[in-house]
Amino acid sequence: MSLIHKLDTRSDDFRHQLTTLLAFEASEDASIEHAVTDILLDVRSRGDAAVLEYTRRFDRLKADNIEALEIPRSEWLAALDALPAAQRTALESAADRIRRYHERQLMQTWTYTEPDGTVLGQKVTALDRVGLYVPGGKAAYPSSLLMNAVPAKVAGVAEVVMVTPTPDGVRNPLVLAAAAIAGVDRAIAIGGAQAVGALAYGTASIAAVDKIVGPGNAYVAAAKRRVYGTVGIDMIAGPSEILVICDGKTPADWIAMDLFSQAEHDELAQAILLCPDAGFIAEVEAAIARLLPTMPRAEIIRTSLSNRGALILVKDLEEACAIANDIAPEHLEISTENPDRWADLIRHAGAIFLGRHSSESIGDYCAGPNHVLPTSRTARFSSPLGVYDFQKRSSLINVSPAGAQTLGRLASELAHGEGLQAHARSAEFRLDDPARPSTPD
Amino acid sequence: MSLIHKLDTRSDDFRHQLTTLLAFEASEDASIEHAVTDILLDVRSRGDAAVLEYTRRFDRLKADNIEALEIPRSEWLAALDALPAAQRTALESAADRIRRYHERQLMQTWTYTEPDGTVLGQKVTALDRVGLYVPGGKAAYPSSLLMNAVPAKVAGVAEVVMVTPTPDGVRNPLVLAAAAIAGVDRAIAIGGAQAVGALAYGTASIAAVDKIVGPGNAYVAAAKRRVYGTVGIDMIAGPSEILVICDGKTPADWIAMDLFSQAEHDELAQAILLCPDAGFIAEVEAAIARLLPTMPRAEIIRTSLSNRGALILVKDLEEACAIANDIAPEHLEISTENPDRWADLIRHAGAIFLGRHSSESIGDYCAGPNHVLPTSRTARFSSPLGVYDFQKRSSLINVSPAGAQTLGRLASELAHGEGLQAHARSAEFRLDDPARPSTPD
Repeated sequence: MSLIHKLDTRSDDFRHQLTTLLAFEASEDASIEHAVTDILLDVRSRGDAAVLEYTRRFDRLKADNIEALEIPRSEWLAALDALPAAQRTALESAADRIRRYHERQLMQTWTYTEPDGTVLGQKVTALDRVGLYVPGGKAAYPSSLLMNAVPAKVAGVAEVVMVTPTPDGVRNPLVLAAAAIAGVDRAIAIGGAQAVGALAYGTASIAAVDKIVGPGNAYVAAAKRRVYGTVGIDMIAGPSEILVICDGKTPADWIAMDLFSQAEHDELAQAILLCPDAGFIAEVEAAIARLLPTMPRAEIIRTSLSNRGALILVKDLEEACAIANDIAPEHLEISTENPDRWADLIRHAGAIFLGRHSSESIGDYCAGPNHVLPTSRTARFSSPLGVYDFQKRSSLINVSPAGAQTLGRLASELAHGEGLQAHARSAEFRLDDPARPSTPD
Repeated sequence: MSLIHKLDTRSDDFRHQLTTLLAFEASEDASIEHAVTDILLDVRSRGDAAVLEYTRRFDRLKADNIEALEIPRSEWLAALDALPAAQRTALESAADRIRRYHERQLMQTWTYTEPDGTVLGQKVTALDRVGLYVPGGKAAYPSSLLMNAVPAKVAGVAEVVMVTPTPDGVRNPLVLAAAAIAGVDRAIAIGGAQAVGALAYGTASIAAVDKIVGPGNAYVAAAKRRVYGTVGIDMIAGPSEILVICDGKTPADWIAMDLFSQAEHDELAQAILLCPDAGFIAEVEAAIARLLPTMPRAEIIRTSLSNRGALILVKDLEEACAIANDIAPEHLEISTENPDRWADLIRHAGAIFLGRHSSESIGDYCAGPNHVLPTSRTARFSSPLGVYDFQKRSSLINVSPAGAQTLGRLASELAHGEGLQAHARSAEFRLDDPARPSTPD
């Protein structure tokens, strides 16, 4: 098994090789689907009692009521106070930068008035209540909590309710500290499909939310899919991806480590380099071989790179950009001179990192933009998580008496054309001379 | 069976009555799900051949290739030329107004530069290619085509591909004329799950799209749900709803006809009036009884009103607004004096119609805002269809060499905290003095 695939766009079967490399089919596990369906039905009908029962069974946590599973704010604040100073400063600085960036995404209500006095517009409001799922154990990342909770609070969501499983009662102090910094309003030590059900349907102790966001395991993902429609959800994320376009003049070690930083997430993560310089590709390959044994997560990186990673020799940077648009990667690094020139050619990517100093990891933690990004080519039609995911719009239509004369005749004509006579008459009733509804020819 | 339910918020079981009235569970038909799964798999593996076979079977249309199912632009233009002048003018005026309103929704790329030279921003791009489903037969509404296609073209979508079933080869000239006005790029006479599959996966003759929008029957809805993730989709709509808040001073006939205009859509549509004036409610009830027999779609209206409609006596308009927020209606009419005062209290609604002259039907056809709106309480977390559904965002991150020193140290600190050492080192490599990565305390 090679360290990493090597492809060349000039080879005859390049397209086929690339398609094979990119192929990823999210598997659907019937046993998970069934288990989740049952749990959701049970939580919907029995509420708190069902949530407590599943928490006893799956997390080995005995509680007589939901109140006993509340994680009090005093505990978050204690966790925050107990952080080493450098870590606390880093978390707070990251939260500040994330907040400042996201404030620029805030949408505002607008209206405009037409000459006849008719007012049209769009009213923007925040969601009332949002549920934030935070995984337990090793997958609990404080940075991920910030990236989900801060935009919701910037949007003006009145109540952000965090749920997080705490198997055997073990709570993650770093996550609790991040909750305090992000402005989370309530935290409950429940997880799995039962937590998703409680948030979606509401129980006696847990008010139903309007949207559920945040990462989770296969059960959580299946539960979120099932409650979609009753509540909003964020995207279900696929494996993480990085695509690096390099002109061959960035230190090879930097590029190798950037590929590692994606590959270390999990065995299915995908790290790909596009470069027109065969000599540089050889340097990166050598750097990978040299640096890999020094990495604590070497085995995950090795599996990820050898199964799904690639160093691809391209004709030129124009071709690299065209391939990037086909791949529509979650993360795209443009590690070149004049990166703006190439960024202008990019139509589809979750986040674009420009220039040799923009490592993806800086964006993951503290640059400011969100690290919850569209994966698996969905950047063709979707966006990073943002404040806009926690706001929604209502159309505003105030037709003046004068406007009702002209617009009413239009509506009447079109409604008759579609055979919807009540629509037509509802407009005609507002005419000053309802006997003559038609637009004169 | 009564003409329409009558409720009073002062009655003890009002909450229960309201909940019962609003209850609607979208049924999932296992036979439809299975049929759709099979058709999609078949289209995915056999492409055009499968599409042609299902079109023969379901639409009784024999075609040797997809080209024979193309509806040429000359035919759309002929349909447009053949329209009566009043109808053509009405369609064109409606399209113009829809376009002007939606142009205000266009998002723009933005960036900002920090003192150390780091540039952050958000790049906005249009989707490349969008599929527009247009139902065949009676459910084919030209207004609906405008509402779906115009925002896509305003967003800058390069190619809008319309698919529409034409059983026995019968094409709807009004829809073709609307396609010409809206700027649709291509039209193909295919429908059902096979059309959704062709758009999502692509075939030899039909390029894969990035998003599929537009209404359809249960097969189309099931197919859209299944391909979601491969492509984007719009919301799957539930039954249409109107909620009218009236102070009792609008002519009762107007309000009765506004309720009819929603009820005439189908038997499951929901029309509700909230009013603090019992005398006015009696007038509206009398108007309903008097006007109903005059309506061509009287039977649909009668069933809708008697099963799902209601006249609700409220204490005052504040209470009416609170109930409206609970219902989060698709359409909300505020038919009162000073409607802005009450609109300020509304947090959740698809579209808000203000004042006595703003009939919903004017909004449905020609006011300008979109008539594709969130139903079934989803206005709590979602928005009307808009230009923003055809644009997406990419984060822009250009970290300056100076920024990489401060941000790199932050990222390194946080990455070590999460046990992701490749993330940390990728940032540390960019430090001028990589030997001292830590933030000094």
